[in-house]
Amino acid sequence: MSIGSALAELSPLLGDLLTTAKAEREAHGQSETHFAPMPPDAVAWPRDTAEVSAIMRICATHECPVIPFGTGTALEGHTLAPKGGLSLDMSRMNRLLAVHPEDMDCVVQPGLTREELNRELRATGLFFPIDPGANASLGGMAATRASGTTAVRYGTMRDNVLALEVVLADGRVIRTGSRARKSSSGYDLTALFLGSEGTLGIITELALRLHGQPEAISAAVCAFEDIGPAVDTVIATIQTGIPMARIEFLDQASVRAVNRHSKAGLPEKPHLLLEFHGSPAGVAEQAERFGEIAADAGGSGFRWATRSEERRALWNMRHKAYYACLALRKGAQALVTDVCVPISRLAQAVRETRADIDASPLPGPILGHVGDGNFHAILLIEPGNAAEMDTARALAARMAERAIALGGTITGEHGIGMGKLHFMQKEHGPGWGVMAALKHALDDQGILNPGKLVPDSRRKEPRGDTAT
Amino acid sequence: MSIGSALAELSPLLGDLLTTAKAEREAHGQSETHFAPMPPDAVAWPRDTAEVSAIMRICATHECPVIPFGTGTALEGHTLAPKGGLSLDMSRMNRLLAVHPEDMDCVVQPGLTREELNRELRATGLFFPIDPGANASLGGMAATRASGTTAVRYGTMRDNVLALEVVLADGRVIRTGSRARKSSSGYDLTALFLGSEGTLGIITELALRLHGQPEAISAAVCAFEDIGPAVDTVIATIQTGIPMARIEFLDQASVRAVNRHSKAGLPEKPHLLLEFHGSPAGVAEQAERFGEIAADAGGSGFRWATRSEERRALWNMRHKAYYACLALRKGAQALVTDVCVPISRLAQAVRETRADIDASPLPGPILGHVGDGNFHAILLIEPGNAAEMDTARALAARMAERAIALGGTITGEHGIGMGKLHFMQKEHGPGWGVMAALKHALDDQGILNPGKLVPDSRRKEPRGDTAT
Repeated sequence: MSIGSALAELSPLLGDLLTTAKAEREAHGQSETHFAPMPPDAVAWPRDTAEVSAIMRICATHECPVIPFGTGTALEGHTLAPKGGLSLDMSRMNRLLAVHPEDMDCVVQPGLTREELNRELRATGLFFPIDPGANASLGGMAATRASGTTAVRYGTMRDNVLALEVVLADGRVIRTGSRARKSSSGYDLTALFLGSEGTLGIITELALRLHGQPEAISAAVCAFEDIGPAVDTVIATIQTGIPMARIEFLDQASVRAVNRHSKAGLPEKPHLLLEFHGSPAGVAEQAERFGEIAADAGGSGFRWATRSEERRALWNMRHKAYYACLALRKGAQALVTDVCVPISRLAQAVRETRADIDASPLPGPILGHVGDGNFHAILLIEPGNAAEMDTARALAARMAERAIALGGTITGEHGIGMGKLHFMQKEHGPGWGVMAALKHALDDQGILNPGKLVPDSRRKEPRGDTAT
Repeated sequence: MSIGSALAELSPLLGDLLTTAKAEREAHGQSETHFAPMPPDAVAWPRDTAEVSAIMRICATHECPVIPFGTGTALEGHTLAPKGGLSLDMSRMNRLLAVHPEDMDCVVQPGLTREELNRELRATGLFFPIDPGANASLGGMAATRASGTTAVRYGTMRDNVLALEVVLADGRVIRTGSRARKSSSGYDLTALFLGSEGTLGIITELALRLHGQPEAISAAVCAFEDIGPAVDTVIATIQTGIPMARIEFLDQASVRAVNRHSKAGLPEKPHLLLEFHGSPAGVAEQAERFGEIAADAGGSGFRWATRSEERRALWNMRHKAYYACLALRKGAQALVTDVCVPISRLAQAVRETRADIDASPLPGPILGHVGDGNFHAILLIEPGNAAEMDTARALAARMAERAIALGGTITGEHGIGMGKLHFMQKEHGPGWGVMAALKHALDDQGILNPGKLVPDSRRKEPRGDTAT
């Protein structure tokens, strides 16, 4: 029972599609954020469900950890290998298997990215709306219950995955549902695996809900003197029933960052960035009604654009905001926070967070998906500076505790991974114990992505005696 | 270890709120459909979460089955007590605990019914949209993942429950989430308990998403020569992006039933019944665009009404359609089927079902929530006629198998209960085993609503030696 014996048995099965090369292990054992590298013992590139099933059977026999890997854009160390084992890179399982225009759905493999999917869908009049910024794999987005800028209109992965095919820890293959639009047939296994971060099974196929490409799109920006009036505008907009497609908030520090990085030329004030989808007349009406609500709340400089270049420039700037913030401090690493609160508490949560960061020595722009009550602070740290990391961790802990106290959650869309394990008991109380019981029921050896999301359930450490 | 000793220990705790009176046991041990009565040994009316928790601790000690009971409108025998035990009637826990207009949500106890909730919400400008027809309790609707006529626009209970408080089999109390609009914080426990039919825990509180009352509503009817053009109209309508609030299908036999029962005066042809929500101008535009699409597909007699009396009469007729169908055959009992398929397969599924029923001796009107691909046949049986029951069961089995073969599910909204247990293996394969493992992880004694949804996991029968 060891990782080495698992790899020995996997080698003839996978040939070139299994490697212990240092470069690949390192590429699969690092994160985009502040985590120290934790490389796996080997990397495999399965080509189909049967291969994933065979790999899991072998790894179960040898109690070898298996860490599914999409594009590596997770922010909480989800793809690191703290117990070693096998990184299962799904990038070769990246086909669009079927599009059903009448049903407005499609079936994909997990390694397909959201941008690739939308490129393939372009001619159909349909699109997949979930947009977390990064060009993540759809399997990875499902595994973290991702969302992003469009959730206010289209929901999250929870709302847009109809069914999954999953390989369990012991190699069994299940389908969690069908392409029917709804079902009351037993426990909602689809929802159970969405957001399970590879700890309950390996997603090998997804049926996704698609939406009609909007006839017309317009984007807008609007400046505010403070977070309060910006959030009041968002609340009034949603209550009025304006079907916003995106409502993004950038605080003053974020605006400064995107001005520098993307030459956005915005006044250095808190901003809302918006998008409207609908018929040409509908989009114009939505933008006008929004403009009136914003003006009532003291918003200024409201302007909207239907030209696609202007829109693209705006969202390109928003999508690069993370890198723009990183660039505020040369060579910095980021600790990215991600809380979500009921929208009535959002202004308070942002204001208190802003004051808390301002009282610290760290730069920390704030931005977020304000229509959902979800926001991020990007805390900039000098790599290797332990004191700064402690400060950032303390700020993040206070943000998480504040979110819980305000009736919210410690993560709106990034997930738990390794980075938020220590808040789980606080947020869920005995509910975390229920999660542990579910994990144990489906993976009693704890071989699936160990060290993430649930309390560590491995009874013993593998020997880790790989041949490398 | 027995039901009797559980009741002896519950009696001083609950006093008058526990009874073994025959009338109450019978009232809680019958179903609205074809199931034989299976009364519990006793009925309790808990008043708060602490009392539910105390009851569960006692029942766990004595391995006494506990069956949560809302309004008894479940259609698959969910509230029957095949192993005896305690029926937990939640009707005294029926308060609206909080409304948060800015967050567009509310918090309720499980015994509150959807009509009571909407009465209480009237002045707020908000409403809870899920409408399964029956004035069911919100806890019961959550437990069966209910939906109904408005799911095409507003989703199902899956989409409109933000979080639950649940008492587990051992009496522990958990919260499955927060009022935040989204979260990636661990396994989706809310979704796990939605649709779990009381087999994993007792729902004691719900946070519900609310929606703005539409400014304007209009309703419409349209006749078609056949199911095919009716479904084509629905597909084209949805693809065009018309945000239908309801799209209901009645086949010719159903139209005949509602004409007799509600004096609806509709031509005896398949019909679509529709509702549009929006601004006055938006609703008029939606109705006009729908009318054009329907006319292209050969629809006739399209008319729409904004007057609330006309609308109410229409949906009153639809909601009474079940009783109208029952009245087609004097003294009949119904076996109500409930399949859901991808909408591209809906016309085929309905047509084959219609032909199959027509070739049998039983009357069986078909109606459904056609925007979701969900439909019902109401098979009318003479009570006590075993041959007819066999025929109905065979028809229902073929419907379920047809739905699975067409990529759908054996139940769109009614759930499994006792009535559909025997199709679960066929629909879910090894996924049903996963459900059993989850059940075992949270209720290893199998005391929560035994005999429903999962393979029976009780290791031994309770003695059932009640004092009655």
